[in-house]
Amino acid sequence: MIAALCLIATAHAQTNMLWLNDSCNVRIASATLYSDLPLKDATEKVIEQEIAAWSVDFKVAKSPKGANFRIKLDKNANLGAEGYMLMPNDNRGYTIVAETPAGALYGTYAMLRNINTAASMDMNPQKPAFQVRILNHWDNPDGSVERGYAGRSIWFADGKINFRSDIETYARANASVGINGTVIDNVNADPKVLSSEMLKDIKTVADRLRPYNIKVYLAVNFSSPAALGGLKTSDPLDKDVIDWWQKKVDEIYALIPDFGGFLVKANSEGLPGPMDFGRTHADGANMLAKALKPHNGIVMWRAFVYNPQGGDRAKQAYYEFMPLDGKFDDNVIIQIKNGPVDFQPREPFSPLFGAMKNTQTMAELQITQEYLGYSDHLCYLGTMWKEFMDYPSFHNGKSVVETTLNQKLTAFSAVANTGTMKNWCGYVMAQSNWYAFGRLAWNPNLSARAIAKEWVMQTITKDEKAVNTICDIMMQSREAVTDYMTPLGLHHLMGWSDHWGPEPWTDIPGAREDWLPRYYHKADKIGLGFNRSSKNGGSNAVEQYQEPLRTMYDDPQLCPKELVLWFHHLPWDYYFNDGKTLWQSLNDHYNGGVEQVIKFQKTWQSLKGSVPESIFKEVESKLQVQLDEAQWWRDGCMLYFQTFSNMPLSFTPKYTLEQCKAKLRTKAYVDRQKD
Amino acid sequence: MIAALCLIATAHAQTNMLWLNDSCNVRIASATLYSDLPLKDATEKVIEQEIAAWSVDFKVAKSPKGANFRIKLDKNANLGAEGYMLMPNDNRGYTIVAETPAGALYGTYAMLRNINTAASMDMNPQKPAFQVRILNHWDNPDGSVERGYAGRSIWFADGKINFRSDIETYARANASVGINGTVIDNVNADPKVLSSEMLKDIKTVADRLRPYNIKVYLAVNFSSPAALGGLKTSDPLDKDVIDWWQKKVDEIYALIPDFGGFLVKANSEGLPGPMDFGRTHADGANMLAKALKPHNGIVMWRAFVYNPQGGDRAKQAYYEFMPLDGKFDDNVIIQIKNGPVDFQPREPFSPLFGAMKNTQTMAELQITQEYLGYSDHLCYLGTMWKEFMDYPSFHNGKSVVETTLNQKLTAFSAVANTGTMKNWCGYVMAQSNWYAFGRLAWNPNLSARAIAKEWVMQTITKDEKAVNTICDIMMQSREAVTDYMTPLGLHHLMGWSDHWGPEPWTDIPGAREDWLPRYYHKADKIGLGFNRSSKNGGSNAVEQYQEPLRTMYDDPQLCPKELVLWFHHLPWDYYFNDGKTLWQSLNDHYNGGVEQVIKFQKTWQSLKGSVPESIFKEVESKLQVQLDEAQWWRDGCMLYFQTFSNMPLSFTPKYTLEQCKAKLRTKAYVDRQKD
Repeated sequence: MIAALCLIATAHAQTNMLWLNDSCNVRIASATLYSDLPLKDATEKVIEQEIAAWSVDFKVAKSPKGANFRIKLDKNANLGAEGYMLMPNDNRGYTIVAETPAGALYGTYAMLRNINTAASMDMNPQKPAFQVRILNHWDNPDGSVERGYAGRSIWFADGKINFRSDIETYARANASVGINGTVIDNVNADPKVLSSEMLKDIKTVADRLRPYNIKVYLAVNFSSPAALGGLKTSDPLDKDVIDWWQKKVDEIYALIPDFGGFLVKANSEGLPGPMDFGRTHADGANMLAKALKPHNGIVMWRAFVYNPQGGDRAKQAYYEFMPLDGKFDDNVIIQIKNGPVDFQPREPFSPLFGAMKNTQTMAELQITQEYLGYSDHLCYLGTMWKEFMDYPSFHNGKSVVETTLNQKLTAFSAVANTGTMKNWCGYVMAQSNWYAFGRLAWNPNLSARAIAKEWVMQTITKDEKAVNTICDIMMQSREAVTDYMTPLGLHHLMGWSDHWGPEPWTDIPGAREDWLPRYYHKADKIGLGFNRSSKNGGSNAVEQYQEPLRTMYDDPQLCPKELVLWFHHLPWDYYFNDGKTLWQSLNDHYNGGVEQVIKFQKTWQSLKGSVPESIFKEVESKLQVQLDEAQWWRDGCMLYFQTFSNMPLSFTPKYTLEQCKAKLRTKAYVDRQKD
Repeated sequence: MIAALCLIATAHAQTNMLWLNDSCNVRIASATLYSDLPLKDATEKVIEQEIAAWSVDFKVAKSPKGANFRIKLDKNANLGAEGYMLMPNDNRGYTIVAETPAGALYGTYAMLRNINTAASMDMNPQKPAFQVRILNHWDNPDGSVERGYAGRSIWFADGKINFRSDIETYARANASVGINGTVIDNVNADPKVLSSEMLKDIKTVADRLRPYNIKVYLAVNFSSPAALGGLKTSDPLDKDVIDWWQKKVDEIYALIPDFGGFLVKANSEGLPGPMDFGRTHADGANMLAKALKPHNGIVMWRAFVYNPQGGDRAKQAYYEFMPLDGKFDDNVIIQIKNGPVDFQPREPFSPLFGAMKNTQTMAELQITQEYLGYSDHLCYLGTMWKEFMDYPSFHNGKSVVETTLNQKLTAFSAVANTGTMKNWCGYVMAQSNWYAFGRLAWNPNLSARAIAKEWVMQTITKDEKAVNTICDIMMQSREAVTDYMTPLGLHHLMGWSDHWGPEPWTDIPGAREDWLPRYYHKADKIGLGFNRSSKNGGSNAVEQYQEPLRTMYDDPQLCPKELVLWFHHLPWDYYFNDGKTLWQSLNDHYNGGVEQVIKFQKTWQSLKGSVPESIFKEVESKLQVQLDEAQWWRDGCMLYFQTFSNMPLSFTPKYTLEQCKAKLRTKAYVDRQKD
């Protein structure tokens, strides 16, 4: 028997409820819930509220008889701490089986998703792939958000916790896609987040998130003992330092018994770390891990490290961390960005994945579109993440994401895109990336398309044709952005002061060379691209990959064309097998990206009437901005490269190079952090 | 000092002289030749004629003094039997150094090319990469040409040698690009070519080709002893058979002392061979080789074998020949088609290259456009051949072409596209492929673009802008054809009776399955493509490749997209990393190929006035035919695939599926073999 609920179509109300129930357009006519959970359990309350919010008529029953919704706790169901199983029941409704309230909660959201997307019921046991499924907020105590394009921080304001935020909606959204952790402060961490005053307020946040099975974590500054505690050092082997951390950790757990742990950016981009005291990353991470261990807390230690003297930046994390393999405590996990440089539109996967055989590792993705058009460009990241996750690593024949799964501790993280703007992410389409991250953290085997479809059906429309049309746009959107920004393996061409527009020409006197675009594109009279091959003076970054990838990437004929300038410096008149020169290919990709945006615009117009008017207008207006900025990127990059190639463009630019530069200078960084 | 000749621009005369001198537009004002060669030497006469034909005023000098052209024989120049070296001389002209008349001849053509393409003089010693640089004519004694699209045979008419042909122009054309051998009859060989009457006439052909350093070879029917000699068997181990061949070979050499040898297609597509008698390819080839050996003749034995019961056709040559590695005599060379199936628009290289470590091998290319639009489509093959030749084989780290070079006997062959039509190849643009083959056989390191440029400057125009424009079209032409015929690794979709149009739907009752397109495309409700991977019941053809190619091809995510359907059966809604489904990619490639032809048409129009009017009109008219047939291919294939995918087209077809089928039936095969 399959659940057969009476559903009622309702008018769509565009609110700030993300993909949650009141932004969709069906309601359950009548819901009766019988639950094995204690009636006072906070999570039970959430479950009741969710089903009630979805129903025209809702009541809690005292016996299972006649209840079309049933929460069944079964300690022997082999579903683990967070798993669940959906089943049809005798009353034409759903029974949710779980071992824990958390499992029941995830089952409830799965059921609502199931109803809302008209999917057939999957009656297999469902367990999350990763234990820790976590957002990283780069929010600062002053209320600003680093790389935030959706207003101010939802966590902080004026040096304190921001209590005006709608934390419950945030928590519902996360729980609905399975996210169970949040780092509320920036990895460029302010020591003051560990102050006793702040911790007391953070306790309130943790209390509000707890019913949704979401743990709070903090990013901490490695110099906190000195900067906050007044010690004369923060050396991780110093006894006073060790004591300071232990006491601080104990203080936290006294307030927040289920506190998750620390996220640390150390010895990276000017941040302090153990190497300041002649110690290693392992010394630093393990010192913190030992303090957290008695409380079951963890340390997420970032591998995003590079220094100006270290040679090819793409190789440095591997060089710095590989010698430490096996030296980390078992509650430490190394957090590695998906690519070896920095969240670019397309990178090869970081070679650290799978390479550290005796160290726990986790991926760090970026939901916020730092290098992908901010909250102005439609860029669905499900495709990008799946490309990364499914890529064969050739470490034990596993995909990249699989290399992070067979561990005692497993985790999957992403930098959030939330802010105080009413729509949370600055753009309705940007919400899809938050949604997709959560779904993939729970189940990495879901397809990007299937996730897009779920999100569209819960957020925008259930009209089948419109759903498919919107999914088509989403699926091709990331490639379009890559094409007009950094095709063929180009990377890091963005502006210096913000990462919005093109600035391949930047020259900042005295600046770190590896922060300048020219370090990456290496345009010259001969050609373009970073020689990371083993030949002709290349940096030999290819050696960090397993065979057959090493040999493939090392040979421009075998290297995937979409990555070729990542690994090779090719002449402008280099011919690919399709008979096109590098120059022609650049023209075609840059202009093709622009053409694709124009196509998206046309396609979007066809949806008028099939999607809520407010969303129609929002996307229509954003696509116009995206088109202009796509043209700006295309023209800026191609006209600049032309100064080296001296070859003709095969499209008509909208801007001159001078206009592109002026646009960057005069198009002041609009403060998107305003509410 | 660099040669500085006085050159005179002349009017262009469009004749049947191919890329030879009188179709170009400069002349040497005054040429005086002093040569070390004996005045009566036949090759010396050719040299004189060539320089004279290029000059307004020409004379032979009795001393080097004042001669601006000098042929200098130097036995100690270390240039080998065919090499040469160009040098400027004191009289502002060229000195050609060689050890032999043949070397002097090649030096002369190189010099003329040098002058005619305004290239800077390369003063390095030049030697051919391959010893045997040979055309295979698929010409039948009745005067027909298998896969010929340029009229009737230049070699045969009505069962005899065709003495009306302009053999000298043919010989000049070949010698000018370095070709030094020709197999004048079809590999599907008629035993009668070995008749004494025919051999006497072939002697005349050989005599006429000899001054141009071109040897005659013959394709022979393995059953000749029985079919022609009247023996009761053609068993290669039978004493009478051995005697018969020995006598026949002796008879040939008595007439043609420099006869090159035999080309044999055996046990392939119904042709007889040693396996008919329970013998191996090695038994058959070595028997012939032993008869030829005393005369320095060679055997080119084709690896193009497959049988209906042998499993995946792409694997069979490898399976049949690998066990024989090391068993062939040293004057036997195995002739292998570039790809494992049959001269398709794009194939991976044949895995036999490099695999036979103890057997001499050579490549067989196809100049005639059997699967590439006949003589109607502009399709420059330099790019395709370079893709093949330069592809890393991973046998000792060598490129595919290099695997055929480090041998006692080296050779490079291609199926010719010549016929009795006035322009030789049925299309001026098709001449470029004959030219390119010769140039690559001499020097595989030349680029496709450089060769195209040479050819255009000698054949069409010297106007720099026009030269570049034509080269641009040529370089992208093969990818355009691949796109509208067989993109993404599709292959063998052509018509059954001729190979001109699309016929992926063919079903011929009782036909060999591996002659039907469906054997190759395997379209079904699920998807498209031939699973040659090691997984899911694939044919595991990938195992015949070396690492890293094996693993690369085996994984659809790493397999080059342009070959993916060669190695994988992918679902219609399979997503590539660019966010496009297989179906969308097919649409984009098929329609993109058509769009490219339209672009070629527009570009060609821009050349009006810059190229000879006759060529302008010929190409203009052919491009119109090509566009129509590109649309036919696109529509026929996509509408047929749509019957499986049930997905919408993203372009507007010109034809219905029924019209495509009718076009194939009613568009009678125009007899392109008429003169």
